[in-house]
Order: sequence, then C-alpha cells, then structure tokens
Amino acid sequence: MSKSETLVLYDTFKEHMQRLADVKNAIALLEWDQETYMPAGGAQFRGQQLTTLADLAHRMSTRDEFGQLMEKLLDCADLPELERKNVELTYEDYQKKRKYPADLVKALTRTYNTCFMAWIQARRENRFAIFAPELEKMIALKQREAETLGYPAQPYDALLDQHERGLTTATLEQIFLELKTQIISLLSWIQQRPQPSDACLHAFADKQQQWDFGIYLLQSIGFDFQTGRQDLSVHPFTTSFNPHDVRVTTRIHENQLSTLIWSCIHEGGHALYEQGLPVEQYGLPAGKASSLVIHESQSRLWENCIGRSLPFWTYHYPELQKRIPIPFREIDLVDFYKAINLVKPSLIRTEADELTYHLHILIRYEIEKKLINEKLPVKELPELWNALYADMLGVQVPDDLHGILQDIHWCHGSLGYFPTYTLGSLLAAQWWQQLQHDIADLDETLARGHTRPVLDWLRSHIHCYGSLYTADELCLRVTGKPLQVEAFLDYAREKFTRLYA
Amino acid sequence: MSKSETLVLYDTFKEHMQRLADVKNAIALLEWDQETYMPAGGAQFRGQQLTTLADLAHRMSTRDEFGQLMEKLLDCADLPELERKNVELTYEDYQKKRKYPADLVKALTRTYNTCFMAWIQARRENRFAIFAPELEKMIALKQREAETLGYPAQPYDALLDQHERGLTTATLEQIFLELKTQIISLLSWIQQRPQPSDACLHAFADKQQQWDFGIYLLQSIGFDFQTGRQDLSVHPFTTSFNPHDVRVTTRIHENQLSTLIWSCIHEGGHALYEQGLPVEQYGLPAGKASSLVIHESQSRLWENCIGRSLPFWTYHYPELQKRIPIPFREIDLVDFYKAINLVKPSLIRTEADELTYHLHILIRYEIEKKLINEKLPVKELPELWNALYADMLGVQVPDDLHGILQDIHWCHGSLGYFPTYTLGSLLAAQWWQQLQHDIADLDETLARGHTRPVLDWLRSHIHCYGSLYTADELCLRVTGKPLQVEAFLDYAREKFTRLYA
Repeated sequence: MSKSETLVLYDTFKEHMQRLADVKNAIALLEWDQETYMPAGGAQFRGQQLTTLADLAHRMSTRDEFGQLMEKLLDCADLPELERKNVELTYEDYQKKRKYPADLVKALTRTYNTCFMAWIQARRENRFAIFAPELEKMIALKQREAETLGYPAQPYDALLDQHERGLTTATLEQIFLELKTQIISLLSWIQQRPQPSDACLHAFADKQQQWDFGIYLLQSIGFDFQTGRQDLSVHPFTTSFNPHDVRVTTRIHENQLSTLIWSCIHEGGHALYEQGLPVEQYGLPAGKASSLVIHESQSRLWENCIGRSLPFWTYHYPELQKRIPIPFREIDLVDFYKAINLVKPSLIRTEADELTYHLHILIRYEIEKKLINEKLPVKELPELWNALYADMLGVQVPDDLHGILQDIHWCHGSLGYFPTYTLGSLLAAQWWQQLQHDIADLDETLARGHTRPVLDWLRSHIHCYGSLYTADELCLRVTGKPLQVEAFLDYAREKFTRLYA
Repeated sequence: MSKSETLVLYDTFKEHMQRLADVKNAIALLEWDQETYMPAGGAQFRGQQLTTLADLAHRMSTRDEFGQLMEKLLDCADLPELERKNVELTYEDYQKKRKYPADLVKALTRTYNTCFMAWIQARRENRFAIFAPELEKMIALKQREAETLGYPAQPYDALLDQHERGLTTATLEQIFLELKTQIISLLSWIQQRPQPSDACLHAFADKQQQWDFGIYLLQSIGFDFQTGRQDLSVHPFTTSFNPHDVRVTTRIHENQLSTLIWSCIHEGGHALYEQGLPVEQYGLPAGKASSLVIHESQSRLWENCIGRSLPFWTYHYPELQKRIPIPFREIDLVDFYKAINLVKPSLIRTEADELTYHLHILIRYEIEKKLINEKLPVKELPELWNALYADMLGVQVPDDLHGILQDIHWCHGSLGYFPTYTLGSLLAAQWWQQLQHDIADLDETLARGHTRPVLDWLRSHIHCYGSLYTADELCLRVTGKPLQVEAFLDYAREKFTRLYA
C-alpha cells in the first residue's frame, strides 16, 4: 500500500473521530448548561436528551466498520508514529467499549439515574438507608463491569484502569501505605504545635467583589478569556469543548472567601491544560486530556504548590487587601499565608487542607477495594466509614450527611476515581520539583507576579502531549523518575515544618 | 393488522422522532450558546460542530427504513386520527428532504458560511460589492433548490412553502396589493397630522433598571421562569428545546428603552407559544410550532395589539414611572401611549413602527420575487432597493449599511421568509378581533393588569394544536374566515385615526 493510500485511510479515521468529538462536545455543552443556566423545569427532557446523544456517540465509537478501518490502518507499515499512536489508543478504547453487552450499558444508565435520585433524597433526609438499595445495585453492576472488562489481579484494577490507563491496586498499595504513615506522623507533630487562626477567611466578603477577584486570579495565572469563560454553579467544575472554548465554574459563599479563591485557581489549572492541548489534534488522543491523574496534577500544582505559596501571595496579597480591605488590611502577609495553610482534620473532603485531604482519599480507597474485591455488604458502609474517620483523622462523624453521603461519585458509578486525586497531588509535587530545577529563581519570579514561565513549561512538557502518555510514562519522560511519593512528602515536610516551626 | 400492532409500530415512529428532536434541540442549544455565552475563540469549532449535528439529524430524518416505517403506518386503517396526522406531516417533510441531492446540501451549507462571512465583511466596509459574489452563489443555489422541490406556478412558491406550508405567490399578491394601497393611503393622512414626540423613549435609562423592567414585563404576560429564562444577545431571539425549557434574549441600549420593552414582549409572545405546546407530543408535529406565520402572529399579538395598547399601559405605566422616574414621572400616560405609537417612515426594518413595518416587508418581497422568478442580477439590487425605499417610504438610503445590507436573512438562504412577518401581523389582528368577541370586557381586563384570559384563550385555541394546521387552516377553524387583510386594516385604521385625530 502506497503512503498516500495510508494517509487517505487515516483521514477517514480522523474525520470520524472529529465527528464523534463534535457529538461528545455537544453532550458536554448540554451538561455545562444543566449546571449553570438551565431552568429547573428543563431537567427531565435534558436527561432524555443526554441519553440519546450518549447512545449516538456509543454507536459511532463501536461500529464494526470503524474497528475494521483501524485494523487496516494498524497493518500499514508506513503509518507515521504519532498517527499510529492515535489509532492504537483509539483501538484499545474501542475494544474495551465493544466488550459491553447492550443490557449492561442500559442497566448502568438506568442505575445512574435512580442512584442519583436516591442519593439526593437520602441527603435531604440525612439517612444512608434510603441510598443503600440503589447503591447496592450500582456496586453489583460495577462488579459485573469489572468481570466484563477483565483485570490483571483484582476486580478493582479494572475500575482503576477506566480512570488512569494501566493503574493497578498493587501500584497503589505501595504508594498509599507510605503516604499514610508519613502524613499521619507529620500530622501528629503539627497538632502539637500552636495553631494559626484562619478567621480572616470566614469574615464577610461581598459576592461581587469576590467574583471580580476570581476573574483577576484567573487572568493572573494565564487563563485566556478569549477562549474561555467563568460562570457560577453549585459545584465548581471545568469543561472543554475544544482548546478554544474552555469553561470553568466557581461558587461564592459570603463567609468563606477561600472557596472562591482556590476553586478559581484549581479549576483554572484544569482549564490551562485544556487551553494548551494541540488544537490540530482535535478529537484524537493526541489532542485530548484523558488521564485524570495528569489533569489533577495540573489543578493541584496551581492550587497548592503555587496558589498556597508565599511567593504567589507576596505579589497578589496587596491586591486582595486593596479589593477587600476588611478584614485583610489588618492582617499581614505571613499571617494570611499561615491562615490559608491551616492543617486541621475535618469531616468533609472538599473542605480539607492540602495534607489531611489525602487521608479522606485513603479512606475511600479502602472502602472501594472492600466493596469491589471483597464484596462488603453496602449496609455496613456507614459503620466502616465512621470507624476509618475516627481512626485516621481522629474525628467523630455526627451523621450520614457529614459522612458517607457527602460525595456524588458513587452514584455516577465512579469507583476507582478517588485515587486519581491523590496521585494527581503526588505528580504535581514531582512537576514542582522539576520546575524549581528548570526555572532559575522560580520563587522570585512568582513573587514578581510572573506565572508565565510556569505555564510555558507546562505547555511544552505536558500539555502538548494530550493523552499519548499515561501519568507514569509522562512522569518518567519529564522527571526521569516514575510516579512516586517522595517529592510530595519532601514538599509537604518542608512546607509544614517551616510553617509550624 | 391488529390495533396493538399498529400502536407498536407507531411507538417506534414516535421514539425515532423523539431521538431526532433530542439531536435537533442539541443544535438549538449550541446556537443559543453561540449567541449568548460562547467565548469569541469558540466560533470556528462551533461551526464545524453544528455541521456535524445537522448532518446527523438529516441522516436520521431521511433514512430509508424510516420512510418504510411511515408508509407501513399510513397503510394501517386503524391508525387514530391524531397519530395519522403526525405521520402524514412527517412523511410529507421526509419526501421533501429526500429530494435534495447530497451535493446540493453540501453546497448550501458551505455557502451559508461563506455568505455570512462576506456579509459581515461587507457591513464592516459598508460596501455591498463585497457581499454580492457570495449572494449570487446563494441565489443560484436557491433557484436550484426551488427546481428540486418543485412548485405549483412560480419558483418562488417553493421557497415560500418552506416557511409556511402551502403558501404561494398568488395568495400573497392579492393580500399584499390591498395592504400596500391601504397602508400608503393611511400613512399619507397621518403624515399631514401633527406628530407626537417620542423623546422620552430616547432619554438615558440605566441598563440594570431596564433589564429588571424587562423581567417584570415577561412575568406580567405570563412567561414562566421555571420553564424558561432570558439572557442578552446582539439580536433578540427565542429558542425552545421543549415546552419546559424555552429561552428568550433581549438587548439593551441606554438611550433606547423601546428596544428592551418591545423585544421582551415580542420574544415573550413567541415563548408563550412554545411553553404552551402539548408536552406529551414532544418531537412530533402535534408538539412542534412549525408555521412561521402562526409563530409571528403570537409575538405580534403580544407586541402590538396588547403591548402597544392603551389598556395594557394603563396598568403598567405607573410601574414604569416608579422604576424609571426620569423622564417618565413628567410624561402622562396618553403622551407615552402616543410616543410608543409614533408612525414615521424610516430606513431600518427592525426599528420601524407597526404600520410602515409592512412596507419594509413588501419591498423585500418584490425583490425576492425578482431574484428568484425573474433572475434579476444581484449587482442591481442596491439600486432597486433604494428606488423602492424612495418610492414606498419616501426615504433616501444613504449607504448600503442602512439599506441592502441590513438583514441577515439572505445570507442564511432564507428567501421567502420575510412575508411571514407580515402575514403574522395580519393573523394577529384576526386573533385580536376574535379575542375581543370571545372575552367580555377585554380592554378593562387588560387595564386591570390581567393578561391571563388572553393566554388561556391562545392556549386552548392555538397553542394546543402544534403544527397540525397551516396558518390559513387554523385561522378558518378559529375565526371562521381564512387568513385575510381586513382585520388588520380595520385595526390599524381605528387605532391610528384615533391616535392622530
């Protein structure tokens, strides 16, 4: 087969992938709208519409002819490397999707809905028992899904792989054990030290002023409003339709400025990644951000390594003091820096500090393993949850709403997802270490308000690769080391021993 | 074939139609977003995405099996009347769509885009010559489209039929001639009378206050914010994803309050229609508003017959005076009423008063006929346009921007569309006459702020039928007369002779 014939075939593949992306991005817009502007009455039809489009996308991605096209392409010896990688990754995904029997797809979709409704109701009545029967169905389906997909050692591996290609329980065990031991040890030292006050973060702050400051922060870190926007939603999130249209949301509480600040920087970090993907690879693996760990490494790098650092606030704190003089006029930079880094075991994952956050994840990881691998009965969940919180964080869970009912993930069937949050933080620390090595005077640069060198580095070391590499492969490529726990522990030890000295 | 088998077949038909509607309504959301919130950078991909989804929808609606299914259904003697009508109308549409050769569909899509871009550029440089070559291509395609579709007497009939089923040039000729003569005669009388001042409508009015007043007006006429919302856009429009999610937009100029007021009421009228369609017929002709004339009759009834009436403002003017005291505190109701009904020939269609508006339409109608039926060369358009404006409205067109380049319709290939605006007004006047007959003390009711009886009447006489009837059929059914010019002329003569007495 001549080279040009190969490229003609590849163009057909590419065109199909772009059409598929167009449909998937229409779904993404429907979902964005649902969370931001859709009137309440629109919910029922929106659900139906999402099902229709998801079904269309599924059919497009699992069609026989599409598989045959890819098989032909993979047989072409002259298919260039990048193009080959695009086809290989897509074919891998195709084969996974083809494993699903129609009744499993239907059952999953139906159970997402009933589970979500039961979860809402359970939260309203603060009673896990209402959620339990539906969650039980979901867990059974996820077990069946794991068997359908297959796994190297344990059923839970199949679910991990859905969120981070190739991730296994065995890998996690090693990393998480070390992490747990070290965090708990650091935490117990911190708890014996005098604690700073974070009262300034709970003072009243006008909503419009908060909003404006959020926009300022997004602009400061390089978010491009020509190719993106920010809106309000109940839960902050990032979505992208293509690198030229990336949307973040935030939320504002009058007595919790920290929610606004770090949701803007966190989602902004996700968005910078999306805005930096190679636009000419639209719809293809090389143009998509599919690794959740890499995605989270971007948001956490900006949120924590930069957004909770002294250099960053050396530049931006005066601006905050100017915009929201009460109470910040009376608080000096160092006290503000201590306040935003207060370490304090708590009940709610999304409100946790940078350090104890991972204990929340480890608890969920333990539970998910037990649910999937050991078939722990769902009704025993609250007891286990509460025991783990008492044991690892030393807090008493007062009710289900502040415990087992707090996260939405399980009703979406997202098991194996939580670990990517922690791996993202570990990876962020590895990028951070490498950044400090590669950019001279990084601290001084940030303290002068320049984040552009960081963004440029991320663009050329990470964003440009789309989803060609797994988190582990990319980490090795960029830092010379696999994804591991050391960088994070070094970073955390240095930061918090200094802060609490 | 037993009854239940027929209904099983019908369910398959209905399901397909609902899936198709889901895709079309995703397109509608993509377009809504494009006009309201999409960042500038998103335009290129959005265009591509819209093409993909339109193509998917086209394939779904022209599939062989779908046609065969409908043929089978139409052969079922026991198919109930409403269901039969749904299938018949869909089949009619299917047959029209199937006539299009693939290359014509592609050429039309491509030319929409190039035409639109040329129009934007031509407007920027205020020079029709930039637009002309692209428009010429579009006109040639529309001529080909007319031949493809077929027509009873003249090619232009085929294009009229696209916007109002069964509408022909012959019907329009009769109506428009009478309308033109009578409007020009009434206008020349008006122009000899003393003219009121509409300066109050051009005074400064704060944007937020205008916005709030717009929301108040929408609420007043019965727009349901649980199943709808309003946003800002460059050109006001209404879109609907289903009766439970209907969206209007408006625009605000600080020195032109009238834009806000009557765009809210006009789009609100469209939206009330959409919110009133039978929700259980989602996706089917009985649940869709497909007649542009009926749609426009709704918006014009609310905008003009009600929204520019003395009874309506008897109730709402005090509210306006309270909200925007300067200048309205100093203007009494009758002077306000005169101001909002000032008749004055002008250059721009969308800014025209209720009476001269139709002369703008008649000019476009004359030009379209010449373009399509007589193959008038596109380059002669500005001259013809300017001559008609001088002749019918007595105004001199200073440049292309205030003349031939003002409307977007032709770059969308929407020829045969303009006449539906005027027919909508005529029909609105017929509804209005009937409403006055059917609702005792209508004026007093409106003057007490009650528009609900009007809405209820529209719901039960018009909205409930979706697109089962053409404008003409529905008019006959509701008023006992076909769509004709008399009611409008009576309404206009009475209103304006009184106003200018």
